[in-house]
Amino acid sequence: MVKVGVVGYGVIGQRLADGVAMQKDMELVGVADVGPTLAVMALKEKGMPYDFYLAVSENREKLEHHDIPITGSLEDLVAKSDIILDATSAGVGAKNKELYARHGKRAVFQGGEKTSVADVFFHGYANYGEGLGKQFLKLTSCNTTGLIRAVDCLDRAMGIDNVIITIVRRVADPGDYHRGLTNALQVEPVPNHQAADLMLIMPHIKATGTLVHTPVTHGHIITVVAKPKRQTTKEEMLELFDAHPRIRVVRLADGFLGNASLFRYARDLGNPRGDMYDIAVWDETITVFEDQVIFVINIPQEAVVIPESIDAIRASMKMQTDRLEAVGQTNQYLGLGR
Amino acid sequence: MVKVGVVGYGVIGQRLADGVAMQKDMELVGVADVGPTLAVMALKEKGMPYDFYLAVSENREKLEHHDIPITGSLEDLVAKSDIILDATSAGVGAKNKELYARHGKRAVFQGGEKTSVADVFFHGYANYGEGLGKQFLKLTSCNTTGLIRAVDCLDRAMGIDNVIITIVRRVADPGDYHRGLTNALQVEPVPNHQAADLMLIMPHIKATGTLVHTPVTHGHIITVVAKPKRQTTKEEMLELFDAHPRIRVVRLADGFLGNASLFRYARDLGNPRGDMYDIAVWDETITVFEDQVIFVINIPQEAVVIPESIDAIRASMKMQTDRLEAVGQTNQYLGLGR
Amino acid sequence: MVKVGVVGYGVIGQRLADGVAMQKDMELVGVADVGPTLAVMALKEKGMPYDFYLAVSENREKLEHHDIPITGSLEDLVAKSDIILDATSAGVGAKNKELYARHGKRAVFQGGEKTSVADVFFHGYANYGEGLGKQFLKLTSCNTTGLIRAVDCLDRAMGIDNVIITIVRRVADPGDYHRGLTNALQVEPVPNHQAADLMLIMPHIKATGTLVHTPVTHGHIITVVAKPKRQTTKEEMLELFDAHPRIRVVRLADGFLGNASLFRYARDLGNPRGDMYDIAVWDETITVFEDQVIFVINIPQEAVVIPESIDAIRASMKMQTDRLEAVGQTNQYLGLGR
Amino acid sequence: MVKVGVVGYGVIGQRLADGVAMQKDMELVGVADVGPTLAVMALKEKGMPYDFYLAVSENREKLEHHDIPITGSLEDLVAKSDIILDATSAGVGAKNKELYARHGKRAVFQGGEKTSVADVFFHGYANYGEGLGKQFLKLTSCNTTGLIRAVDCLDRAMGIDNVIITIVRRVADPGDYHRGLTNALQVEPVPNHQAADLMLIMPHIKATGTLVHTPVTHGHIITVVAKPKRQTTKEEMLELFDAHPRIRVVRLADGFLGNASLFRYARDLGNPRGDMYDIAVWDETITVFEDQVIFVINIPQEAVVIPESIDAIRASMKMQTDRLEAVGQTNQYLGLGR
Repeated sequence: MVKVGVVGYGVIGQRLADGVAMQKDMELVGVADVGPTLAVMALKEKGMPYDFYLAVSENREKLEHHDIPITGSLEDLVAKSDIILDATSAGVGAKNKELYARHGKRAVFQGGEKTSVADVFFHGYANYGEGLGKQFLKLTSCNTTGLIRAVDCLDRAMGIDNVIITIVRRVADPGDYHRGLTNALQVEPVPNHQAADLMLIMPHIKATGTLVHTPVTHGHIITVVAKPKRQTTKEEMLELFDAHPRIRVVRLADGFLGNASLFRYARDLGNPRGDMYDIAVWDETITVFEDQVIFVINIPQEAVVIPESIDAIRASMKMQTDRLEAVGQTNQYLGLGR
Repeated sequence: MVKVGVVGYGVIGQRLADGVAMQKDMELVGVADVGPTLAVMALKEKGMPYDFYLAVSENREKLEHHDIPITGSLEDLVAKSDIILDATSAGVGAKNKELYARHGKRAVFQGGEKTSVADVFFHGYANYGEGLGKQFLKLTSCNTTGLIRAVDCLDRAMGIDNVIITIVRRVADPGDYHRGLTNALQVEPVPNHQAADLMLIMPHIKATGTLVHTPVTHGHIITVVAKPKRQTTKEEMLELFDAHPRIRVVRLADGFLGNASLFRYARDLGNPRGDMYDIAVWDETITVFEDQVIFVINIPQEAVVIPESIDAIRASMKMQTDRLEAVGQTNQYLGLGR
Repeated sequence: MVKVGVVGYGVIGQRLADGVAMQKDMELVGVADVGPTLAVMALKEKGMPYDFYLAVSENREKLEHHDIPITGSLEDLVAKSDIILDATSAGVGAKNKELYARHGKRAVFQGGEKTSVADVFFHGYANYGEGLGKQFLKLTSCNTTGLIRAVDCLDRAMGIDNVIITIVRRVADPGDYHRGLTNALQVEPVPNHQAADLMLIMPHIKATGTLVHTPVTHGHIITVVAKPKRQTTKEEMLELFDAHPRIRVVRLADGFLGNASLFRYARDLGNPRGDMYDIAVWDETITVFEDQVIFVINIPQEAVVIPESIDAIRASMKMQTDRLEAVGQTNQYLGLGR
Repeated sequence: MVKVGVVGYGVIGQRLADGVAMQKDMELVGVADVGPTLAVMALKEKGMPYDFYLAVSENREKLEHHDIPITGSLEDLVAKSDIILDATSAGVGAKNKELYARHGKRAVFQGGEKTSVADVFFHGYANYGEGLGKQFLKLTSCNTTGLIRAVDCLDRAMGIDNVIITIVRRVADPGDYHRGLTNALQVEPVPNHQAADLMLIMPHIKATGTLVHTPVTHGHIITVVAKPKRQTTKEEMLELFDAHPRIRVVRLADGFLGNASLFRYARDLGNPRGDMYDIAVWDETITVFEDQVIFVINIPQEAVVIPESIDAIRASMKMQTDRLEAVGQTNQYLGLGR
């Protein structure tokens, strides 16, 4: 059993912990954070299903005030773990890395960290082999993780020469009060960093794109324009997407009208927190136009990186050396790929 | 075991079904709706934990297209049930009532129906006795249900002479595409219908108030200004609210900054759909001012009416004749009142 | 002096009236609407700069209640005008057409009407000649009007083979309470109607695209991916856009961060209603990528169609037969093309 | 002619400059800001109707890059002015005060500054006499300015003992990208600072209240619950509000559905920037309930403080010693109180 610690128990960290807890070949040692955040208070109210380690000892009193039991320090968690999933705020992971290195432990960083923090920039489906045995891996960010799933899916079947993406980005997560947009769309320069990141993971593909921030909280929507290396059809694309365990084909005609429908559906499915691991692609948007293909996908930004983060544990720990075996194991434990 | 059918499997109906399924002294016969909505598709994807009855036989093919098994017709569901929770769209319940009456069955209607549809306008805590043995009950709407909890809580301790409420109303539920506001607040005439409804349930209290619709989806926020019949203190109010199983006292200082914090917290708690049965009252808003008291509450509009709806079953079926015994039983099975 | 009547005094009609009033070679006969809307009440409060004609005689009392002087009926306005700008709600224009035809008058319909209502589907810059002398013209809708300006600008210089557009659409106008989205993005099938409309105006170009509705009120943002027939550079594109009187090049670096910045800027310019006739293109988004070009534009949806609508008067009335002379005259009177 | 300089040419500063320019007994010397903001670029595009003074000399090159003529430094503007309207960001005014003091000039600060910056906390209608001849005055903030207008209006007629307000606050101005809320309401502790400020201006009234931030940009909406010292009627209140030059009575039934309707109406009126100086009170919300009165008002946050700021000039410079004469002069030049 690989022992996993989760450092940073926020939007991503909570979901990483839940995802690891579902892997029958991993053991969740515990989670660490700096104080009695709402997430930690919820952990307490749930009866402490995960042990809590306090990263900032000065805050001990604050946790005691809320009767939250503390199992140990951040260093204790690191010492007990084989590998750390670091989901701290951008920049903190780079500092924590020293601690992980000192203890000779492995770590997987999230997309907010600089790519230089890690030995390899990683995506479970697209470059699993690159991560094998590496000590420090960095995951792609939420948009890029979902985007690469779809592009890799087509690339392996028909070869993709280049992609142009337009990201309609949700600007904040549900419950965020520290950032937000009100009645405004915000434009970013071309190319966006997601296109640049895609090229780091898939260097054989040229990519660029635009990005518009929008005042919503549930899911990025991306228009992908890709140039395949051979002719294809809508039917072939549909089949490929449908067969991918982390991609869900949905139809406007069925009532999946946008990102909010998918969030509602995930809640109705009874998924914890109303989360969704799979990206969605809308059937009615899949199009072959001249020598390019077009499709629109939804990225559930809170949970989409969980499967690939778990893949990263498998790669770093060499739990599986075969790509499809590894992602398949993750999928099975997460219930993906009905 | 009281046999309960849920008619209308939308935002409220799904939550009623889940709530009934948690009551150890009730049996959920099944749920009925008109076609393969997203909620029904989610029921299918979950493996049909509840039997589905089709209310509009013409839509049989549509359900078969989605491989959704149909247990029977709406009439079949009614025939098998002792009591129906009707959560159909406003106006449909009044039509369904004829069917329920023909079968001699009891029914509880939701707040969207006209009050005249029922024998009694009901709230579990405030007028349980009025519902005892009645065939047709109508629940208060989401805002009124939550509001009355808080007012009743104070009224039983100190007597309330009158209340003035300002409702800051969420305008749509998460996932709604058929209604919405964009960058606009909308004002309603004074008094709002919630004040009128409160007086129907609590005729000894005078009430009025204003209402402003706001472009958000998670929880109404109400400022309550109430005139108690005797002096009180913030401390007494805090104690009363804290002791109420369906009221949760929260603090801005802890990070509960508004309705979105509460929704995030409910998701982090692992509550199905991120739902919350209890209203919240903010500690830092509880104030005694001149001869009035002020406090601000949050109404989680999707799930708040579930406990009182289950109370209504208890009243109509005379499962308990004592008010506190009845609501206590509901609370216990729903996990309220830690 | 060409005599112009404006029928429908709503969001578009008010701006059409203002635009016509600025044309020194046209006379605004008056405006017509059905009752005392806010726009008509504002006309009254401003001292009736335009004569008002009542389209629904039954509402005479309602106008008298607000002391709004009525100059005549809709038929009176038609009789006095050489040409009508019809800006009524979708579908009403088709009915009004009979009245215009009976009086032998010309008319320009807005984008909401069916294309079949008119003899020609018209855009001032792209197909001015097609409109010459025609009795009934229909304008392109707001998105298509702005989009075609930019595509036509490049097409005349370098030839455009095809375009793929992603429209990030504002879902309602400021002040709309009858429609809106709240915390939701809505996806449309591919291709969107704007691409189809572009091909009707510019049949030598192939077009397709996606569309996402967003909960904002100030300006659509479109990513355009176009395939030119020869090589070009960012510098050439910048020069072409900069030289176009109805296109404004803006920079993110200067603080034009999105559609809301442009609205604020138009207000600060002192433009009536904070309106903007010109579309904006962001410098930092203009990109040459492989054999395609990319750029992002902003469409100020309330006023963008005004210049081309006035061009339509010029074409129908043969006030100018030369395209550039016609649009140049419109531009001069509207103050476009500094 | 009193010579007025405006320091800080942002949302408020631009409107102050326009307001001063309309006063026939004042001369606008010029406006100062720190760099080529969008507002300054718009000033340039309009042809420099006001002289521009540069507050940060290091930014000279940036302004030259945009061809914006610079008339002098901030100190030059202060030297030429009799009185300064300081509309800089919160905290900057306190620093600027030293400069004003050194030159022996008067100044009016906006609501963002600490009250201690000034000799008197000022409201044109409520405490004009307090400001007479004072060197440094601070205006009430936008919410408080509008609120006090309405409370003062009633107080002078019937006496007001206490008020309880619920502010539904717009969270950002149109065009703001540095702050915003997305799908969230935010609660503040009781009492809010607006109630505290009201008591500073009107020490004979007791006040408290709640505040909820909402994700919209056009106008705060306040529910006011006030206890008059004698009986009154809705009719009397309507008459009082109707007679006030800075209060506009509107009706839901006429289509004024909320803050966005008022913004649209102001734009349709042709008001520069779509601004509105007057607050609105909704007829259908004016209510007498028990011994209290209730009404709902709209505060157009961008322009509401302009009239009272100009009143402050009149008070400080002793242009008029009589309150009603002073505000009447301001009203006449601003076109208020038709």
